[in-house]
Amino acid sequence: MGHSICRLNVEPRYSDAAICNGVVYLAGQVPDDASADTAGQTRQVLATIDRLLHEAGSSKSRILMCQIFLADIADIGVMNSVWDEWVDSANSPPRATVQAALADPAWRIEVVVTAAA
Amino acid sequence: MGHSICRLNVEPRYSDAAICNGVVYLAGQVPDDASADTAGQTRQVLATIDRLLHEAGSSKSRILMCQIFLADIADIGVMNSVWDEWVDSANSPPRATVQAALADPAWRIEVVVTAAA
Amino acid sequence: MGHSICRLNVEPRYSDAAICNGVVYLAGQVPDDASADTAGQTRQVLATIDRLLHEAGSSKSRILMCQIFLADIADIGVMNSVWDEWVDSANSPPRATVQAALADPAWRIEVVVTAAA
Repeated sequence: MGHSICRLNVEPRYSDAAICNGVVYLAGQVPDDASADTAGQTRQVLATIDRLLHEAGSSKSRILMCQIFLADIADIGVMNSVWDEWVDSANSPPRATVQAALADPAWRIEVVVTAAA
Repeated sequence: MGHSICRLNVEPRYSDAAICNGVVYLAGQVPDDASADTAGQTRQVLATIDRLLHEAGSSKSRILMCQIFLADIADIGVMNSVWDEWVDSANSPPRATVQAALADPAWRIEVVVTAAA
Repeated sequence: MGHSICRLNVEPRYSDAAICNGVVYLAGQVPDDASADTAGQTRQVLATIDRLLHEAGSSKSRILMCQIFLADIADIGVMNSVWDEWVDSANSPPRATVQAALADPAWRIEVVVTAAA
Protein backbone atom coordinates (compact mmCIF):
# COMPACT_ATOMS: atom_id res chain seq x y z
CA MET A 1 0.00 0.00 0.00
CA GLY A 2 1.38 3.42 -0.95
CA HIS A 3 1.61 6.56 1.14
CA SER A 4 -1.60 8.46 1.84
CA ILE A 5 -2.25 11.68 -0.12
CA CYS A 6 -3.68 14.84 1.42
CA ARG A 7 -5.16 17.36 -1.02
CA LEU A 8 -5.99 21.03 -0.41
CA ASN A 9 -9.05 22.81 -1.81
CA VAL A 10 -10.25 19.95 -3.99
CA GLU A 11 -12.47 21.09 -6.83
CA PRO A 12 -13.87 18.73 -9.46
CA ARG A 13 -11.22 19.76 -12.05
CA TYR A 14 -8.14 20.21 -9.88
CA SER A 15 -6.91 20.88 -6.40
CA ASP A 16 -4.48 23.46 -5.07
CA ALA A 17 -2.01 21.03 -3.55
CA ALA A 18 -1.17 17.40 -2.94
CA ILE A 19 0.92 16.38 0.05
CA CYS A 20 2.43 12.91 0.11
CA ASN A 21 5.35 11.39 2.00
CA GLY A 22 6.59 14.81 3.11
CA VAL A 23 6.49 16.50 -0.29
CA VAL A 24 4.06 19.30 -1.20
CA TYR A 25 3.10 19.68 -4.86
CA LEU A 26 1.34 22.96 -5.64
CA ALA A 27 -0.78 23.62 -8.71
CA GLY A 28 0.44 26.34 -11.05
CA GLN A 29 -0.37 29.59 -9.26
CA VAL A 30 -1.68 32.56 -11.21
CA PRO A 31 -2.63 36.14 -10.30
CA ASP A 32 -5.86 36.92 -8.47
CA ASP A 33 -6.15 40.30 -10.14
CA ALA A 34 -4.95 40.21 -13.73
CA SER A 35 -5.29 43.98 -14.05
CA ALA A 36 -2.07 44.38 -12.02
CA ASP A 37 1.25 44.83 -13.81
CA THR A 38 3.92 42.13 -13.86
CA ALA A 39 5.37 43.22 -10.52
CA GLY A 40 1.94 43.28 -8.91
CA GLN A 41 0.96 39.91 -10.43
CA THR A 42 4.24 38.41 -9.20
CA ARG A 43 3.56 39.69 -5.69
CA GLN A 44 0.06 38.19 -5.79
CA VAL A 45 1.33 34.81 -6.97
CA LEU A 46 4.09 34.66 -4.35
CA ALA A 47 1.59 35.63 -1.62
CA THR A 48 -0.70 32.80 -2.72
CA ILE A 49 2.23 30.39 -2.63
CA ASP A 50 3.08 31.56 0.90
CA ARG A 51 -0.50 30.91 1.99
CA LEU A 52 -0.73 27.47 0.36
CA LEU A 53 2.67 26.37 1.67
CA HIS A 54 1.59 27.43 5.15
CA GLU A 55 -1.65 25.45 4.83
CA ALA A 56 0.42 22.46 3.74
CA GLY A 57 2.76 22.72 6.72
CA SER A 58 5.65 24.07 4.66
CA SER A 59 7.10 27.50 3.89
CA LYS A 60 9.10 29.42 1.28
CA SER A 61 12.26 28.34 3.14
CA ARG A 62 11.55 24.71 2.24
CA ILE A 63 10.98 24.96 -1.53
CA LEU A 64 12.63 22.13 -3.46
CA MET A 65 12.02 23.37 -7.00
CA CYS A 66 10.32 26.37 -8.57
CA GLN A 67 9.25 26.48 -12.24
CA ILE A 68 8.32 29.96 -13.45
CA PHE A 69 6.42 30.58 -16.68
CA LEU A 70 6.38 34.16 -17.95
CA ALA A 71 4.05 35.26 -20.73
CA ASP A 72 6.95 37.45 -21.91
CA ILE A 73 10.46 36.39 -20.92
CA ALA A 74 11.46 40.06 -21.14
CA ASP A 75 9.64 40.42 -17.79
CA ILE A 76 12.28 38.35 -16.01
CA GLY A 77 14.02 41.42 -14.58
CA VAL A 78 10.83 42.76 -13.04
CA MET A 79 9.90 39.30 -11.78
CA ASN A 80 13.37 38.89 -10.25
CA SER A 81 13.15 42.21 -8.42
CA VAL A 82 9.96 41.06 -6.69
CA TRP A 83 11.35 37.55 -6.19
CA ASP A 84 14.53 38.91 -4.56
CA GLU A 85 12.48 40.74 -1.90
CA TRP A 86 10.45 37.61 -1.23
CA VAL A 87 12.83 34.66 -1.39
CA ASP A 88 14.57 33.31 1.72
CA SER A 89 18.02 34.18 0.40
CA ALA A 90 19.79 31.78 2.77
CA ASN A 91 17.56 28.94 1.59
CA SER A 92 16.95 29.85 -2.02
CA PRO A 93 15.52 27.05 -4.16
CA PRO A 94 16.55 25.66 -7.54
CA ARG A 95 14.57 27.51 -10.18
CA ALA A 96 13.85 27.46 -13.91
CA THR A 97 12.24 30.33 -15.82
CA VAL A 98 10.94 30.06 -19.38
CA GLN A 99 8.41 31.83 -21.56
CA ALA A 100 4.97 30.32 -22.21
CA ALA A 101 1.60 31.68 -23.20
CA LEU A 102 -0.78 31.22 -20.26
CA ALA A 103 -4.45 30.25 -20.06
CA ASP A 104 -5.63 33.84 -19.58
CA PRO A 105 -3.91 36.30 -21.92
CA ALA A 106 -3.98 38.89 -19.12
CA TRP A 107 -1.82 36.71 -16.89
CA ARG A 108 1.88 37.61 -16.99
CA ILE A 109 3.16 34.83 -14.71
CA GLU A 110 2.41 31.32 -13.48
CA VAL A 111 4.55 29.59 -10.85
CA VAL A 112 4.78 25.89 -10.00
CA VAL A 113 6.35 25.00 -6.64
CA THR A 114 7.39 21.71 -5.08
CA ALA A 115 8.36 21.93 -1.40
CA ALA A 116 9.21 19.81 1.60
CA ALA A 117 6.47 19.62 4.24
CA MET B 1 22.90 3.75 -0.75
CA GLY B 2 19.87 5.36 -2.32
CA HIS B 3 16.48 3.86 -3.11
CA SER B 4 16.23 1.46 -6.03
CA ILE B 5 14.67 2.72 -9.27
CA CYS B 6 12.28 0.69 -11.41
CA ARG B 7 11.84 1.85 -15.00
CA LEU B 8 9.08 0.94 -17.46
CA ASN B 9 9.63 0.33 -21.18
CA VAL B 10 13.28 1.34 -21.25
CA GLU B 11 14.47 2.34 -24.69
CA PRO B 12 17.97 3.63 -25.40
CA ARG B 13 16.84 7.27 -25.49
CA TYR B 14 14.22 7.34 -22.74
CA SER B 15 11.83 5.24 -20.73
CA ASP B 16 8.12 5.64 -20.07
CA ALA B 17 8.34 5.81 -16.30
CA ALA B 18 10.61 5.75 -13.30
CA ILE B 19 9.34 4.53 -9.94
CA CYS B 20 11.39 5.30 -6.85
CA ASN B 21 10.51 5.44 -3.15
CA GLY B 22 6.78 5.34 -3.86
CA VAL B 23 6.71 8.06 -6.51
CA VAL B 24 5.96 7.44 -10.20
CA TYR B 25 7.44 9.85 -12.75
CA LEU B 26 5.95 9.51 -16.23
CA ALA B 27 7.55 10.76 -19.43
CA GLY B 28 5.64 13.43 -21.32
CA GLN B 29 2.77 11.56 -22.98
CA VAL B 30 1.73 12.44 -26.52
CA PRO B 31 -1.01 11.21 -28.87
CA ASP B 32 -0.76 7.83 -30.61
CA ASP B 33 -2.73 9.10 -33.60
CA ALA B 34 -1.92 12.70 -34.42
CA SER B 35 -4.67 12.82 -37.04
CA ALA B 36 -7.25 13.08 -34.25
CA ASP B 37 -8.55 16.48 -33.17
CA THR B 38 -7.62 18.03 -29.82
CA ALA B 39 -10.41 16.20 -27.98
CA GLY B 40 -9.39 12.89 -29.52
CA GLN B 41 -5.70 13.47 -28.84
CA THR B 42 -6.50 14.37 -25.24
CA ARG B 43 -8.49 11.15 -24.82
CA GLN B 44 -5.57 9.16 -26.26
CA VAL B 45 -3.05 10.80 -23.95
CA LEU B 46 -5.19 10.29 -20.85
CA ALA B 47 -5.77 6.63 -21.81
CA THR B 48 -2.01 6.12 -22.12
CA ILE B 49 -1.52 7.74 -18.73
CA ASP B 50 -4.14 5.39 -17.24
CA ARG B 51 -2.31 2.39 -18.68
CA LEU B 52 1.14 3.51 -17.52
CA LEU B 53 -0.06 4.44 -14.04
CA HIS B 54 -1.69 0.99 -13.78
CA GLU B 55 1.57 -0.69 -14.86
CA ALA B 56 3.37 1.37 -12.22
CA GLY B 57 0.96 0.33 -9.47
CA SER B 58 -0.74 3.71 -9.33
CA SER B 59 -3.89 5.26 -10.79
CA LYS B 60 -5.44 8.57 -11.84
CA SER B 61 -6.76 8.89 -8.27
CA ARG B 62 -3.20 9.13 -6.96
CA ILE B 63 -1.75 11.87 -9.22
CA LEU B 64 0.43 14.34 -7.32
CA MET B 65 1.03 16.88 -10.11
CA CYS B 66 0.01 17.21 -13.74
CA GLN B 67 1.77 19.56 -16.18
CA ILE B 68 -0.14 20.05 -19.44
CA PHE B 69 1.44 21.57 -22.55
CA LEU B 70 -0.95 22.64 -25.31
CA ALA B 71 0.29 23.55 -28.77
CA ASP B 72 -2.42 26.25 -28.73
CA ILE B 73 -3.59 27.49 -25.34
CA ALA B 74 -6.93 28.30 -26.99
CA ASP B 75 -7.57 24.53 -26.85
CA ILE B 76 -7.83 24.62 -23.06
CA GLY B 77 -11.62 24.52 -23.10
CA VAL B 78 -11.73 21.43 -25.30
CA MET B 79 -8.98 19.79 -23.25
CA ASN B 80 -10.86 20.59 -20.02
CA SER B 81 -14.08 19.04 -21.32
CA VAL B 82 -12.27 15.73 -21.92
CA TRP B 83 -10.31 16.08 -18.67
CA ASP B 84 -13.50 16.65 -16.66
CA GLU B 85 -14.95 13.34 -17.89
CA TRP B 86 -11.72 11.54 -17.02
CA VAL B 87 -10.45 13.01 -13.77
CA ASP B 88 -11.33 11.49 -10.38
CA SER B 89 -13.19 14.59 -9.26
CA ALA B 90 -12.97 13.66 -5.56
CA ASN B 91 -9.21 13.25 -5.85
CA SER B 92 -8.33 15.84 -8.47
CA PRO B 93 -4.63 16.69 -8.71
CA PRO B 94 -2.78 20.00 -8.76
CA ARG B 95 -2.35 21.02 -12.37
CA ALA B 96 -0.62 23.63 -14.54
CA THR B 97 -1.47 24.28 -18.18
CA VAL B 98 0.67 26.40 -20.52
CA GLN B 99 1.27 26.71 -24.24
CA ALA B 100 4.33 25.19 -25.89
CA ALA B 101 5.23 24.04 -29.37
CA LEU B 102 5.66 20.25 -29.31
CA ALA B 103 8.11 17.92 -31.04
CA ASP B 104 5.63 16.90 -33.74
CA PRO B 105 3.70 19.87 -35.16
CA ALA B 106 0.65 17.60 -35.48
CA TRP B 107 0.53 17.03 -31.72
CA ARG B 108 -1.92 19.29 -29.87
CA ILE B 109 -1.13 18.13 -26.34
CA GLU B 110 1.60 16.63 -24.15
CA VAL B 111 1.01 15.74 -20.49
CA VAL B 112 3.56 15.11 -17.73
CA VAL B 113 2.29 13.29 -14.63
CA THR B 114 3.86 12.58 -11.25
CA ALA B 115 1.89 10.17 -9.06
CA ALA B 116 2.09 8.19 -5.86
CA ALA B 117 2.59 4.43 -6.35
CA MET C 1 9.22 17.77 11.67
CA GLY C 2 9.96 17.32 7.97
CA HIS C 3 13.06 15.95 6.30
CA SER C 4 16.16 18.14 6.24
CA ILE C 5 17.07 19.89 2.98
CA CYS C 6 20.62 20.17 1.64
CA ARG C 7 21.20 22.87 -0.98
CA LEU C 8 24.15 23.22 -3.37
CA ASN C 9 25.73 26.55 -4.35
CA VAL C 10 23.20 28.76 -2.61
CA GLU C 11 23.08 32.28 -4.01
CA PRO C 12 20.63 34.93 -2.81
CA ARG C 13 18.29 34.39 -5.78
CA TYR C 14 18.48 30.63 -6.29
CA SER C 15 20.57 27.56 -5.67
CA ASP C 16 21.79 24.87 -8.04
CA ALA C 17 20.19 21.93 -6.26
CA ALA C 18 18.05 20.84 -3.35
CA ILE C 19 18.44 17.34 -1.90
CA CYS C 20 15.71 16.05 0.38
CA ASN C 21 14.67 12.54 1.42
CA GLY C 22 16.80 10.93 -1.30
CA VAL C 23 15.61 13.09 -4.18
CA VAL C 24 17.81 15.63 -5.99
CA TYR C 25 16.09 18.61 -7.63
CA LEU C 26 18.33 20.55 -10.01
CA ALA C 27 17.72 24.09 -11.18
CA GLY C 28 17.20 24.56 -14.90
CA GLN C 29 20.67 24.19 -16.42
CA VAL C 30 21.74 26.47 -19.26
CA PRO C 31 24.91 26.75 -21.39
CA ASP C 32 28.12 28.23 -20.01
CA ASP C 33 29.15 29.53 -23.43
CA ALA C 34 26.17 30.73 -25.44
CA SER C 35 28.33 31.25 -28.51
CA ALA C 36 28.33 27.48 -29.09
CA ASP C 37 25.84 25.90 -31.47
CA THR C 38 22.95 23.76 -30.25
CA ALA C 39 25.08 20.60 -30.12
CA GLY C 40 27.79 22.39 -28.18
CA GLN C 41 25.33 24.01 -25.81
CA THR C 42 23.67 20.64 -25.22
CA ARG C 43 27.06 19.08 -24.40
CA GLN C 44 27.77 21.92 -21.96
CA VAL C 45 24.42 21.56 -20.22
CA LEU C 46 24.73 17.78 -19.89
CA ALA C 47 28.28 18.15 -18.51
CA THR C 48 27.00 20.59 -15.89
CA ILE C 49 24.24 18.16 -14.97
CA ASP C 50 26.84 15.37 -14.60
CA ARG C 51 28.87 17.57 -12.29
CA LEU C 52 25.91 18.67 -10.15
CA LEU C 53 24.49 15.15 -9.89
CA HIS C 54 27.92 13.93 -8.76
CA GLU C 55 28.10 16.69 -6.13
CA ALA C 56 24.64 15.63 -4.96
CA GLY C 57 25.62 11.97 -4.66
CA SER C 58 23.67 10.93 -7.74
CA SER C 59 24.49 10.28 -11.42
CA LYS C 60 22.95 10.30 -14.88
CA SER C 61 22.02 6.63 -14.30
CA ARG C 62 19.64 7.68 -11.52
CA ILE C 63 17.61 10.39 -13.24
CA LEU C 64 13.89 10.18 -12.42
CA MET C 65 12.60 12.82 -14.84
CA CYS C 66 14.13 15.18 -17.37
CA GLN C 67 12.31 18.24 -18.77
CA ILE C 68 14.00 19.77 -21.80
CA PHE C 69 13.15 23.24 -23.10
CA LEU C 70 14.44 24.10 -26.58
CA ALA C 71 14.37 27.65 -27.91
CA ASP C 72 13.50 26.08 -31.27
CA ILE C 73 11.84 22.65 -31.22
CA ALA C 74 13.38 22.05 -34.66
CA ASP C 75 16.65 21.51 -32.76
CA ILE C 76 15.33 18.29 -31.22
CA GLY C 77 17.24 16.09 -33.67
CA VAL C 78 20.56 17.75 -32.90
CA MET C 79 19.82 17.67 -29.18
CA ASN C 80 18.91 13.97 -29.41
CA SER C 81 22.16 13.10 -31.17
CA VAL C 82 24.14 14.61 -28.28
CA TRP C 83 21.75 13.12 -25.72
CA ASP C 84 22.10 9.63 -27.22
CA GLU C 85 25.88 9.71 -26.75
CA TRP C 86 25.45 10.86 -23.15
CA VAL C 87 22.49 9.00 -21.71
CA ASP C 88 22.91 5.71 -19.82
CA SER C 89 20.89 3.76 -22.38
CA ALA C 90 20.19 0.88 -19.99
CA ASN C 91 18.82 3.32 -17.40
CA SER C 92 17.29 6.00 -19.60
CA PRO C 93 14.94 8.37 -17.79
CA PRO C 94 11.42 9.56 -18.59
CA ARG C 95 11.72 12.77 -20.58
CA ALA C 96 9.59 15.58 -22.00
CA THR C 97 10.79 18.06 -24.62
CA VAL C 98 8.92 21.23 -25.56
CA GLN C 99 9.74 24.60 -27.07
CA ALA C 100 10.08 27.71 -24.91
CA ALA C 101 11.83 31.02 -25.23
CA LEU C 102 14.63 31.16 -22.65
CA ALA C 103 15.96 33.96 -20.44
CA ASP C 104 18.93 34.68 -22.70
CA PRO C 105 18.01 34.75 -26.40
CA ALA C 106 21.39 33.16 -27.19
CA TRP C 107 20.55 30.06 -25.18
CA ARG C 108 19.23 27.18 -27.30
CA ILE C 109 18.51 24.75 -24.46
CA GLU C 110 17.59 24.54 -20.78
CA VAL C 111 17.28 21.22 -18.93
CA VAL C 112 15.55 20.46 -15.62
CA VAL C 113 16.50 17.18 -13.94
CA THR C 114 15.09 15.34 -10.93
CA ALA C 115 17.16 12.36 -9.77
CA ALA C 116 17.49 9.84 -6.98
CA ALA C 117 20.42 10.47 -4.62
